[in-house]
This record gives sequence, structure tokens and C-alpha cells, in this order.
Amino acid sequence: MSRKSDLEESWRRNAENWTRAVRDRLIPSRNAGTDAAIVEAIVRRKPARFLDMGCGEGWLCRAVAEKTGCAATGLDGTAALIEAARAADPNGSYRTLSYDDVIAGAPVPNAPFDVIAFNYALFEEDIVPLLRAAKHLLVDNGVIVIQTLHPDNDPGDGTDGWREEDFAAFENEAWAKMPWYFRTTESWETVISDTGLSFELVEFPRVGSAGDPLSLVLTLTANE
Amino acid sequence: MSRKSDLEESWRRNAENWTRAVRDRLIPSRNAGTDAAIVEAIVRRKPARFLDMGCGEGWLCRAVAEKTGCAATGLDGTAALIEAARAADPNGSYRTLSYDDVIAGAPVPNAPFDVIAFNYALFEEDIVPLLRAAKHLLVDNGVIVIQTLHPDNDPGDGTDGWREEDFAAFENEAWAKMPWYFRTTESWETVISDTGLSFELVEFPRVGSAGDPLSLVLTLTANE
Repeated sequence: MSRKSDLEESWRRNAENWTRAVRDRLIPSRNAGTDAAIVEAIVRRKPARFLDMGCGEGWLCRAVAEKTGCAATGLDGTAALIEAARAADPNGSYRTLSYDDVIAGAPVPNAPFDVIAFNYALFEEDIVPLLRAAKHLLVDNGVIVIQTLHPDNDPGDGTDGWREEDFAAFENEAWAKMPWYFRTTESWETVISDTGLSFELVEFPRVGSAGDPLSLVLTLTANE
Repeated sequence: MSRKSDLEESWRRNAENWTRAVRDRLIPSRNAGTDAAIVEAIVRRKPARFLDMGCGEGWLCRAVAEKTGCAATGLDGTAALIEAARAADPNGSYRTLSYDDVIAGAPVPNAPFDVIAFNYALFEEDIVPLLRAAKHLLVDNGVIVIQTLHPDNDPGDGTDGWREEDFAAFENEAWAKMPWYFRTTESWETVISDTGLSFELVEFPRVGSAGDPLSLVLTLTANE
């Protein structure tokens, strides 16, 4: 199997474990600040329409809708996660759509959007077609917000390449390993440049004001 | 002469022209947003003590002191600029000190500082010793804020190297050419890493929300 199909298969197999891990707040880095960082980066734009790409069980849609009153839409390629999202938020708008569907131009409900988020949701090697497709779903002056691993936290050798998450921190559960592609800051810059998006802001959330960096949060505009 | 002495000499020769250019607001990019961007990046930290490194005729000290009520200190290696700063702000604290003096450990009045700014004030090739010295002038959780050229606006070939500013935009005035060292975003990352500083935020001020990028504004902490 390709890494891409391994990646998709891992989410199908992990859907139930993942939903529990998010909802029971079992992921230390999320509690330490990455959840708050992505919510803040979205909410300060005061979106009327928000899209969460790779929304999983939907926590970010619920959080943003609660804080802003906006119409939140979530897309995910894993049907079981979309079912979990709908069960937790019957008024929300959740749709099972893969990234390939979006790249192919499948209609996205409620488009265009003021803010589109990818919160730890860009795991593939070539993400340019997806980001280009997302760009076309933005209103004028809309932004794409990406949260991703801080390069200091790369478990590999610090150069672009595939890594494997084994979810060992969760113990005792039957997790399927998930392949994901690490990229350096320089590689992120190249990707963003190739999409025709422009950096508006790069943030470096930490554990407290003096702690280790937890992630990168990129705010991107469609302005040339 | 070395580029460093050319650089120092250009400021001595341009001190009067520069003071007039700043005070008469003759620099379009400053009016378009870079002045506002650096003031905002400093003021939101609510500094009680602020240091402007390479303060020139002192406008940034005056602006920050006016908005925050803080004690502002300005250092510059060019005596004529410090004289102009003192004349415009008799209550401010301005001192003629070169970067070499600071690197050598010369006492800096009012240290330590909550915020230290370099607003278009890092023109030399090797800026690591200066940034390390500045780091030692920070309080715990203090930050260094740097505004510099956006790489899209490089007049050269996009790789690290020396450039020359001829101030041609100002016409008719007897400006001395100023050498300055351009560095790429990647090179900035290397420099920051070598100083032991950490990125907290990178901003990309623009002309309006859809305009061209004017500059980079880096907010750096001393946290490892």
C-alpha cells in the first residue's frame, strides 16, 4: 500500500480511539496550548463562515461556533469521524469529503469562507493542490490558518521526510500507525509560495511564556 | 575602508538629512505602515522600560513613551543623531554608544528592559554578538523586536550579501551611500538560532490588508 492509503486507513481504524482521545482530553500538547492557539487564531478574525478541513470528531467547529456564533462547516475523509461530529453537534454542518474530493472540485457546503483551518491536518507529502483548492474557497481577504508541528519537535533527522506516529503515549489501545510527512520551516515557505498564498503571521505557541515551542500557527492570505 | 566603517561614516554624513527625512515624514514605506507596525509590536507588550537600539533621531522612543508612559532609552553610535534626539525630547534618556561598545559590555542606562527594538537598525553582516549582548539586557520574559526588509523587496539577487542604499528617492540632497547586508528568511532563522533567542511571532505588515509586504517584524524571546 502507498503511504497515502496507509494514512487514510489509519484514520478509519483509529476513528473511535481518536474521538475518545480528543473528547477525554488525553493529548497533553492540546491541553498545554495548541487547542487554545488555533481557536484564538481563528476567533480573532471574527469569521461569519468557518471551514475546518480534516475536522475529525468536530471539536474545533464546536469551539469556534460557540465563541463567535458563526456558521461552522467541517469536512473529513473518514465517515466514522463525521458521524461522531454530527452526533455531538446536530446543528453543525459536517460532510464526509476526502481531500481528493475537494481538489477535484466537489461542492463544499456554505462556501466561500472567511477562515479555513487545517489543525494538524496536513500529513501528505504534496499539499500544494489541496491548499490551492482551499484558496478558491475563501472570500476576498479570507485567510487559511494552519497549525502544525514545530520543527524542534521533529522525531526524525530534521530534514523533509516521512515519519510514523504510533500513538504509544496512549498505551493499551489498538491504534494503527499513521504515516505523516515532516517538513522544515524552509519547506513550508516553499509550499506556501507555490500555492500563491502569502504569509500574514507566523506564531509559535509555547507552554506558558517561557516553555518549549509546541507548534507553528501560520495565517495565510490569498493576496499576491 | 571596510564596509563597517563605510556604514558608520554614512550615518555621520547623513545625520542631518536623515533627521529631516524622518521628521518631515519623507519615507513612503514608513507612512504606509512600517512605523505603525513596530510601534504596535512594542506597545502591546506594555513595557515599563524600553530600549531602542540604533534609535537615530529618537522618533520611536518618543512614540512608545507617549503611548505607554514607559521610560524610553535610546542608543545610537552617531553623536549628531543623539543630539537631535535630546533636543526633541529633553526628558528622554539618549546616549551615544556604538554597537561595539554594547558588545564590549559598556553600561546601558536603565537596563534591564522589557522590550528592546531594532527598527531597521541591523545592517552589518555579523549581528550575532550584538543580539547576544542585547539578550543580556532583557528582563525575564522580555523580548527583542526586530523590523527589517521583507525578502520580496531585496534589490539584489535574493541571496545573502551586501547591498548599497543611495537614498535616490530623496533627490537633490547630499546623501552618502550606505552599505547594508541583506539576509534571507532562512539566514535570519540561522542568526536567531545562533543567538539562543527563540521566535515568538513573525509578522508581515502590508499596505492595507491586500497590499504588498512592507517588512518583517520578528518578536524574539530569550527562552531556550
